Amino acid sequence: MIIVLKPQATEESAREILAQIESVGLKPLFMPGTERIVLGALGDERVLNQLNIAAHPMVENVKPILSSYKQVSREMQSHDTQVKFGKRTIGGGSFAVIAGPCAVENPEQIMRSAALVKKYGAVGLRGGAFKPRTSPYSFQGLEEEGLKLLQQASQEFDLPCVSEIIDPAHVDMMAKYVDAFQVGARNMQNYKLLKAIGQSQKTTILKRGMSATIEELLLAAEYIYSEGNHNVIICERGIRTFERATRNTLDLNAVAFIKTRSHLPVIVDPSHGTGIRELVGTMAKAAVACGADGVIVEAHYNPQIALSDGQQSLDEAAFEKMMRELTPFIEAAGKVNA
Amino acid sequence: MIIVLKPQATEESAREILAQIESVGLKPLFMPGTERIVLGALGDERVLNQLNIAAHPMVENVKPILSSYKQVSREMQSHDTQVKFGKRTIGGGSFAVIAGPCAVENPEQIMRSAALVKKYGAVGLRGGAFKPRTSPYSFQGLEEEGLKLLQQASQEFDLPCVSEIIDPAHVDMMAKYVDAFQVGARNMQNYKLLKAIGQSQKTTILKRGMSATIEELLLAAEYIYSEGNHNVIICERGIRTFERATRNTLDLNAVAFIKTRSHLPVIVDPSHGTGIRELVGTMAKAAVACGADGVIVEAHYNPQIALSDGQQSLDEAAFEKMMRELTPFIEAAGKVNA
Amino acid sequence: MIIVLKPQATEESAREILAQIESVGLKPLFMPGTERIVLGALGDERVLNQLNIAAHPMVENVKPILSSYKQVSREMQSHDTQVKFGKRTIGGGSFAVIAGPCAVENPEQIMRSAALVKKYGAVGLRGGAFKPRTSPYSFQGLEEEGLKLLQQASQEFDLPCVSEIIDPAHVDMMAKYVDAFQVGARNMQNYKLLKAIGQSQKTTILKRGMSATIEELLLAAEYIYSEGNHNVIICERGIRTFERATRNTLDLNAVAFIKTRSHLPVIVDPSHGTGIRELVGTMAKAAVACGADGVIVEAHYNPQIALSDGQQSLDEAAFEKMMRELTPFIEAAGKVNA
Amino acid sequence: MIIVLKPQATEESAREILAQIESVGLKPLFMPGTERIVLGALGDERVLNQLNIAAHPMVENVKPILSSYKQVSREMQSHDTQVKFGKRTIGGGSFAVIAGPCAVENPEQIMRSAALVKKYGAVGLRGGAFKPRTSPYSFQGLEEEGLKLLQQASQEFDLPCVSEIIDPAHVDMMAKYVDAFQVGARNMQNYKLLKAIGQSQKTTILKRGMSATIEELLLAAEYIYSEGNHNVIICERGIRTFERATRNTLDLNAVAFIKTRSHLPVIVDPSHGTGIRELVGTMAKAAVACGADGVIVEAHYNPQIALSDGQQSLDEAAFEKMMRELTPFIEAAGKVNA
Repeated sequence: MIIVLKPQATEESAREILAQIESVGLKPLFMPGTERIVLGALGDERVLNQLNIAAHPMVENVKPILSSYKQVSREMQSHDTQVKFGKRTIGGGSFAVIAGPCAVENPEQIMRSAALVKKYGAVGLRGGAFKPRTSPYSFQGLEEEGLKLLQQASQEFDLPCVSEIIDPAHVDMMAKYVDAFQVGARNMQNYKLLKAIGQSQKTTILKRGMSATIEELLLAAEYIYSEGNHNVIICERGIRTFERATRNTLDLNAVAFIKTRSHLPVIVDPSHGTGIRELVGTMAKAAVACGADGVIVEAHYNPQIALSDGQQSLDEAAFEKMMRELTPFIEAAGKVNA
Repeated sequence: MIIVLKPQATEESAREILAQIESVGLKPLFMPGTERIVLGALGDERVLNQLNIAAHPMVENVKPILSSYKQVSREMQSHDTQVKFGKRTIGGGSFAVIAGPCAVENPEQIMRSAALVKKYGAVGLRGGAFKPRTSPYSFQGLEEEGLKLLQQASQEFDLPCVSEIIDPAHVDMMAKYVDAFQVGARNMQNYKLLKAIGQSQKTTILKRGMSATIEELLLAAEYIYSEGNHNVIICERGIRTFERATRNTLDLNAVAFIKTRSHLPVIVDPSHGTGIRELVGTMAKAAVACGADGVIVEAHYNPQIALSDGQQSLDEAAFEKMMRELTPFIEAAGKVNA
Repeated sequence: MIIVLKPQATEESAREILAQIESVGLKPLFMPGTERIVLGALGDERVLNQLNIAAHPMVENVKPILSSYKQVSREMQSHDTQVKFGKRTIGGGSFAVIAGPCAVENPEQIMRSAALVKKYGAVGLRGGAFKPRTSPYSFQGLEEEGLKLLQQASQEFDLPCVSEIIDPAHVDMMAKYVDAFQVGARNMQNYKLLKAIGQSQKTTILKRGMSATIEELLLAAEYIYSEGNHNVIICERGIRTFERATRNTLDLNAVAFIKTRSHLPVIVDPSHGTGIRELVGTMAKAAVACGADGVIVEAHYNPQIALSDGQQSLDEAAFEKMMRELTPFIEAAGKVNA
Repeated sequence: MIIVLKPQATEESAREILAQIESVGLKPLFMPGTERIVLGALGDERVLNQLNIAAHPMVENVKPILSSYKQVSREMQSHDTQVKFGKRTIGGGSFAVIAGPCAVENPEQIMRSAALVKKYGAVGLRGGAFKPRTSPYSFQGLEEEGLKLLQQASQEFDLPCVSEIIDPAHVDMMAKYVDAFQVGARNMQNYKLLKAIGQSQKTTILKRGMSATIEELLLAAEYIYSEGNHNVIICERGIRTFERATRNTLDLNAVAFIKTRSHLPVIVDPSHGTGIRELVGTMAKAAVACGADGVIVEAHYNPQIALSDGQQSLDEAAFEKMMRELTPFIEAAGKVNA
């Protein structure tokens, strides 16, 4: 950690802080410059959190050297983690397509949608039962009843399934129905929820928050991982920027960057990432090219009657086209369909 | 609601959508233009949510006319809502300063900090017991023990108190200790939590999410309000932008804008809004000037030993200065200290 | 155009605005709703600009129906435009790699860098002579001398060349040396410059501004195009967001979106789009996959001694690797190397 | 400057970089840590720009210690700069209101608008003659003819005037007509223009770019200042964020922050900062409170017929109200009307 002191800071202030650094077992460094005194602390700087050096009145700013996540980083484990998803595996040399409707709406809808995505090669089924909606007046999901329907479709078509969890109190209940939890963007920093999931062993797809930095995303993963659940899959789903022509700005830079820093699998959600049906397949191809381990997309046997997110859901023709067009890109990437 | 069709849309598609609009009791409008067919739906367009017209393959985009929040809007109630906070009232002609440490740390700290803020005229005490922290390795709060200490200080100094709630399961437990809940930025869209709070009658300070639009913020308030709890105070605490010289970008435009659209009281958090101790008092004055009903600031009897957010906490000298300098601005605004 | 009136607006105000709409030859529409009066204007709404209806005190907001760009849109021309770049063509079924140093520094540097990029299949050479730099104390380019060196390298290696133009007064001078102008991100809305370029016939690579929306970018292209210069290539180079792990956020959504709305070729700059050498090749592959017509990348025979942007410049090994890895993706996209 | 090496960096790489640091006269520092080697360079790190250390393949990142602007910083001059504007002075203990129409449209409009703003106490007149407009189809200004009209109104009402400059070739021509140049947001990084202005002595209001950081804004000021023109006034006019309820997000944090770091006067543009007439006066008050030295606002004798920005222009009633309501806040700030 590098600590820059204010111009008016005296050597005495510096000595005071250096003593603090030493007190937690780090090696202190004194660097008097022409315009500023700079201090350093060598060693595992995560222990410096407790000192709260930034609060010192003579400290101008503090620059960490190490990233604050640890267990999910490549420095702790250089090889790629592979995560179980039902009988499948996410990560490593394969590319996984998980698909299904935004929300489970009724038996016919989930069954027909599952049949559709199975037919063209999806390896997993998605479907929300607890829907966090911006407006209290929007459809909020079928709740546990929806999970039962999802599980039936999952078993019927031999597709492991994933559904969003929004309450720490639901961990045990939901674990009975689904092969993976999804933590939605709005809950990426719901730490109570992350810890509860971390104490289970259920595979979890962790979506990036709308305005979460890559570091915050990896720290959210660290919350789950450090509680003992190593089955974490990162999901880039678009960030919020000034651009509104698309629903979100899909940050594929983040995928490429995270693959260099973390050993966890990374998938992409081009449905929320664009919000526009016509762009979903295109951005799924870009996801392959930038190194993602899979995509999770919204598909519905009849998007026109969908109760949510119909404008970004693929119908059969669009899903078939996406799967067909993905194939040469998956090959170009030297991967196989999961 | 205005519905713009794609260039290739036929009159037949238009008729199909118009029939849908009519089916939910709205008045349909057909506007064939030279480059596009445009449709309209007159009436309470919130019922159109269920039709999901945006998902129609011939629809290019949909432009809502009415804001989607309703009960919290000035159109439903034109006069200002005043919300009880212990024996105090937030909103109306007064300006309230709520202050205290970021987190309750120990009996001495909360007592001395409460004494400090009381001495210079604060009307409420803040202090976190459940702390959502970006890193799992940071101090996470004293939990229920912290609430007890907060309540003791609150009673000792006759200052109503507020503390952050992070789990719907905590509503009843926390209601015993605090005069108001705070919903933090990271939980603004934790709808499970908002609904649980909505079913209580506890005064709630709802903080804006880091990347929440004003409309989303008011819809989050609507979640609580529409469940029956009308004691909602909006809090602007800075949004996340590209600027990193300050911790967040305090959006005082939003305060001025919300005061024109909603009848709820609005307060400002210049501590998180700037992240820099030297700017807190200045931005508190700006908060008065832009029409806010109060501020919530971090103050600590000794910020250097604070376990969190010390760099933005006011010490006694800075808190005294802020309170002194606020006075003429509160008068200029034609308000009184709450 | 849809015009939403304020709640307190009277029918008289509405009639006043409708008369204005009619006065410019558009068809006015009156839509009295339960909560608001809504007005419409059918026809080429671009003429409404002159009426400034948004300024009317009874107007709440104005929603345009048509995009404000016209000549660069697919509605004016449905087939892809192909733009000449020296003897080459950008757009259509090929994928072009333009490469070279950030700035022309000296004869050896530009010659060796040109040789490098030619060797592995680049079709064009880049190199800045007028460098807009954030700090006045940074290297500002060799100016006309740099253009001469660039032209020599261009001729020596039969690589058409592109260089940034920053002053309308330079159009004629620069046109002698380069095959294409580049308008940098900071000048995307330097309309004086765009018009001057529009009056030449020189091929122009127009980079997206750091915070320019897609619509603003296409309007900037329209500035050049509507002056008579149709040789415009759009370049996505990353936008500024809250994320700072990468230098910018490369918005590949924008590429996919623009390809559906505009007939102009679109290329991607993964060097500025990421700012990190290790990610450039990866994001170049993603550029192919999302439908771009080419990339422009920084390559330098020895990035360590580069006077600017060395951290994102590819050296020979990295450039060779990128070119090799791009091949299967270009094939997967059904394109050929330009 | 602090240089963090990659995990795989050897002591040899470190020695190589340390030698480079020493070669430019700085004091090198070697800090071998447990997870990373960290290097330091003490002295005026601005000379390190030429070394481009970030490009070294073994460098992970580089953290500057000093801000990159120098002459405009408080460290170079601790007292406030006061800048002449005609017979007036901006900065110091006064608060200046500059007002007038967005664009000069015709003799009647500028005369009547000037009369209006003079009547209620404005100290300066604004009016655009060269208008940078997002669309090529919008009104682009009266050019030199507009400047003549502006000058006439300026002289008639004894109000110094300011107008936007968009081309370095206009410096001499415009200097004849106006008391101050305005550099618009879109040209904040048009360095050619900044340098040309820097070589004049004309007072210049430099507006912050839409996505410019505070540091970039101060560096743009440094471009002008370091060329010898010290008459620079900074203007915060709102930044672009995800929020679209207001036209921009007025960043008053930036005003408070810049006042601590730079000696230059800072004014605020609440018209562009909000884009909504009803909020302009409110945010002008907030500008006083956060420490600004003035505001520049759009006012028009009849905004309904304005050719640009009518929706944010104040009419006589609104301007009178703003001026009246500002008074107690200016007094609360301990300032006087300029």
